[in-house]
Amino acid sequence: MNYEFILKDIRPSKEEIETVSKTAHSILDFLNKTCREENIPAEAMFVGSFSKKTWLSGKSDIDIFIHFPLDADIDFLKEKGLYLGYKTSDYFNGTPSEHFASHPYLTSEIDGIEVDFVPCYLIKDASELKSAVDRTILHTQYIKSHLKEDQIDEVLLLKKFMDCVKTYGSEYKTGGFAGYLCELLILKYGTFEHALNEAQYWKYGTVIDLEDYNTANMFNDPLITIDPTDMNRNVAAALRTEKMVDFILASRNFMDIVKDDSLSPEEKESKIKKFFNPLEKAHFKERSEDEIKRELLEDFKDRGTQTLVISFDVPDISADSLHPQLNKTVESLTEKINNEEFSVFKSDYWSDEENAAIFLLELNVFRQSKYKIHEGPKVWPKKACDNFKAKWEDAVYPKDEFLVLTKEREFKTAVDYIKHIFTLENIHTIKVGKNITENLCNYRLMEIDEFLNNLDIEEDSKSDLLNFLDDFLNPGQYIKR
Amino acid sequence: MNYEFILKDIRPSKEEIETVSKTAHSILDFLNKTCREENIPAEAMFVGSFSKKTWLSGKSDIDIFIHFPLDADIDFLKEKGLYLGYKTSDYFNGTPSEHFASHPYLTSEIDGIEVDFVPCYLIKDASELKSAVDRTILHTQYIKSHLKEDQIDEVLLLKKFMDCVKTYGSEYKTGGFAGYLCELLILKYGTFEHALNEAQYWKYGTVIDLEDYNTANMFNDPLITIDPTDMNRNVAAALRTEKMVDFILASRNFMDIVKDDSLSPEEKESKIKKFFNPLEKAHFKERSEDEIKRELLEDFKDRGTQTLVISFDVPDISADSLHPQLNKTVESLTEKINNEEFSVFKSDYWSDEENAAIFLLELNVFRQSKYKIHEGPKVWPKKACDNFKAKWEDAVYPKDEFLVLTKEREFKTAVDYIKHIFTLENIHTIKVGKNITENLCNYRLMEIDEFLNNLDIEEDSKSDLLNFLDDFLNPGQYIKR
Repeated sequence: MNYEFILKDIRPSKEEIETVSKTAHSILDFLNKTCREENIPAEAMFVGSFSKKTWLSGKSDIDIFIHFPLDADIDFLKEKGLYLGYKTSDYFNGTPSEHFASHPYLTSEIDGIEVDFVPCYLIKDASELKSAVDRTILHTQYIKSHLKEDQIDEVLLLKKFMDCVKTYGSEYKTGGFAGYLCELLILKYGTFEHALNEAQYWKYGTVIDLEDYNTANMFNDPLITIDPTDMNRNVAAALRTEKMVDFILASRNFMDIVKDDSLSPEEKESKIKKFFNPLEKAHFKERSEDEIKRELLEDFKDRGTQTLVISFDVPDISADSLHPQLNKTVESLTEKINNEEFSVFKSDYWSDEENAAIFLLELNVFRQSKYKIHEGPKVWPKKACDNFKAKWEDAVYPKDEFLVLTKEREFKTAVDYIKHIFTLENIHTIKVGKNITENLCNYRLMEIDEFLNNLDIEEDSKSDLLNFLDDFLNPGQYIKR
Repeated sequence: MNYEFILKDIRPSKEEIETVSKTAHSILDFLNKTCREENIPAEAMFVGSFSKKTWLSGKSDIDIFIHFPLDADIDFLKEKGLYLGYKTSDYFNGTPSEHFASHPYLTSEIDGIEVDFVPCYLIKDASELKSAVDRTILHTQYIKSHLKEDQIDEVLLLKKFMDCVKTYGSEYKTGGFAGYLCELLILKYGTFEHALNEAQYWKYGTVIDLEDYNTANMFNDPLITIDPTDMNRNVAAALRTEKMVDFILASRNFMDIVKDDSLSPEEKESKIKKFFNPLEKAHFKERSEDEIKRELLEDFKDRGTQTLVISFDVPDISADSLHPQLNKTVESLTEKINNEEFSVFKSDYWSDEENAAIFLLELNVFRQSKYKIHEGPKVWPKKACDNFKAKWEDAVYPKDEFLVLTKEREFKTAVDYIKHIFTLENIHTIKVGKNITENLCNYRLMEIDEFLNNLDIEEDSKSDLLNFLDDFLNPGQYIKR
């Protein structure tokens, strides 16, 4: 296929490239001039998608690494790095904010473009690594020296496709494919289409080893992509099986269209285009927020389940710390509810990462009968039975080969159980993220209709939440169009 | 302990023994005279508890085996056996009825005593066995020659205890201890009390091998009691684990009292006596049938379950054929209902063995949500996924490493499922007893309250049914007093 009909919309225009480049070079020049003038032994350089020319139109950001010699003191590096960032941001009237990766760095919006100022050490290969961000320089160099000019378009197609099928981004929330991984896939498979064609047949544990390091057996991950700049690292280590599977299935769905000879060229282009545009959700098309809520609630009601929402405030921690804690907690809660002989049909969590988080629990079985069978020892060993009898007295009777008793359930509804668990006293019955424990105990518990009808979420997060609920109800919709 | 205070009520009186013996010997004499007069080459003899003097007061029955020489033709034996039975019954104005074990035999009530006339071959040891009933002669001989006079009382105590804790009787319905097995236990352990004392420590697979045949490893049964008259037979083969367990636990409960030194002799006797009398059930004490029903229904309601009754007519087959078929069917039905993601808390069956039978199903989870997850192939093999997708089209999505779809449940309630299954078309979805299949499909399905409030059961079976329901609600009540 010729994908020019897609590329014309996602490839940055000459004007965009000129505008971004102009800003970028002004900033770099200012930084390097400042270093020279103030005798700071550092030099700024471009890394990332701007440097590699692999950014999607409208999604430019400028990553500037300020590298210090390997023998520079780490505190000196941190201090001067931030200083240079702030000074540059001020000079260009930017809006700065501090962030933290392996060490603090500054992000500033300058001329409408997000600019990162990251201090680092200048390393020549992975053996010299001093901090995780230092790799970025090696990655940028590798791609720039290996990606052919005409493969830049292929990277753009793959990134855009990944983005639309929700598999793009290696932050914990997504658990998908990093930009660098997309670039390596193009190096491996040559083109976007060939990458998808091959991805259809990926297995759990598929290996991509561009430099033939033969170190794949060090890893037990769904996808193993040996970092060409470090034979001991799997670039796809953060990729969740679920996202790899989504990409495989999306690739199959896409290739089915590409290979479908019964389609006219126009039909084919129109179907392919859908994979490069945001999903049009039936619930959301020209609907008001109230209409969307109403339709979501109708869908929940139709399922004949009980859907509970546990909402609470989130602590002031990074998104990459928050998400695993939320995930771990809701998974453990789900398991424990099932252990109490209720049945969770589906559960998930959502957070705006700044203010609010919710656990969503959809239950098949949310009410149980009054009694349960409490199993004691096998009937054969008399001593164990004597002890069990001494404890429970006359209530004990044999069932199959066990002594048991019919015991009133402590929790007759899942709601009762949750109320019991979510107290400072009992919260550690479940595996709970350490930073969210306290907030969790100040939860609000509602059924989904009460929650949606009194939606207490920041205005600009509402559509994200409604999207999450729609995804919860309709899994797998992004990977087929 | 001296158990004379029990024995005085269960040991047949001199008068009872004389009355029964007189009738027995008149019958035997008449039979043998008839054989001589009519040149029938057969001779009658006593077997069973009358012959062994091990019958409980008021429970005498006279077992007469009419034995033919080993070379007699089987049809001749059958014909003459029945002929002699009928002739004798008529002579003594008895009320005869035909039965069937390995071959037909006659039972007749004569002077208020049940008399069995069973034709058989006279064998000297197990190697000559021609039909299963022939063993009875060997068993009778063995007990008569090994059981000491003063051990007869011990047998009576054990039989009565077994009867009261509901473990006596080897017919399929009970699955308990045969009379012969009780006698062997006394031979093994010497006395009633010692037998119970030892039974406390029985394990699964306990071996009793009076003649040291060392053939126990031929058997894999909960209790292995090698038949002293046949080293290849386990006398306890029909004993169900459940009944062995009941006997072990009842023995422990009984011995706890016997060994409790804190009790006065009067208290001890009074507690022990309860094990030799019918259980006094709280629900039944001085209650009318309507009051009993009301209390049972209150108990069912309290449990917060849904209790379903499937009632149907029973076919004209023997009790020992009927019970396993009912048992197998209700067990299979229970398993299938659980497979449909409902949850059966407890199930059982009851039958009067002549007219009616019911399956009782008590459900924790009797209603389910609208949808279930239908699991397809693993996502990795493309071909299998293509086939699954071709079948289910757009509904397919990935979950963990599987392709699945959210599918509407065919049965949203357990009642829906049962109605679906109990048709001639679908009944073989479950394992169903072959003689009850047709009757089952003409079932009535009710909840327990509707069933009890419109009880459609023969008058003289009602109390048995109500007892069954009480046992269902209160398991294990017979083994502790």
